[in-house]
Amino acid sequence: MIPDTLSATFGALADPTRRAILARLSLGEASVTELAEPFAMSLPAVSKHLKVLERAGLISRSREAQWRPCRLAPEPLKDATDWLAEFRRFWDESLDRLAEHLRELQTKGQAT
Amino acid sequence: MIPDTLSATFGALADPTRRAILARLSLGEASVTELAEPFAMSLPAVSKHLKVLERAGLISRSREAQWRPCRLAPEPLKDATDWLAEFRRFWDESLDRLAEHLRELQTKGQAT
Repeated sequence: MIPDTLSATFGALADPTRRAILARLSLGEASVTELAEPFAMSLPAVSKHLKVLERAGLISRSREAQWRPCRLAPEPLKDATDWLAEFRRFWDESLDRLAEHLRELQTKGQAT
Repeated sequence: MIPDTLSATFGALADPTRRAILARLSLGEASVTELAEPFAMSLPAVSKHLKVLERAGLISRSREAQWRPCRLAPEPLKDATDWLAEFRRFWDESLDRLAEHLRELQTKGQAT
């Protein structure tokens, strides 16, 4: 089975280092060396994470500059957000119920 | 390393069957048999997916009824959405740039 793009996106996001790399790239493009700095990690280990992100279309790497900077590619993150948006009403409803419960407690408190 | 909750959530979402199960549960609670129906899948295979979703806190299973209905637990989906929201400005910016490009093309078209 060919993995679908949404599964590739969520799979790539299922790792704290890869999420930290994306957060770093949201501040601007960076080289592999720069990306490796904040992690106690070898360059090959970081490169492996970058390959997963690149395969999922979450980053692109320039072929022009010699240091091949990595850049965030946000489109798959948008698709993932769109998928999750379908469930938004569930936590909105939970918050509504909580607010209603607090109002009831308050009313009871005033009555006694 | 203990897997963090956000990684568990994204990992659980990295599978089309598990996403389809969550979409089905967004319509209301369902038994394992009901959840297995739309997939050409054995009950043990579906149970395995449900265990992944349960471990990630994305579903809860009632202990009261004998058929142990599954129910959507939306909180981890909210946390995943909150994480992705940090990147929203990137695709908003991409859309802004596209709109600007189209406006420029239109202006050029009118000038010639």
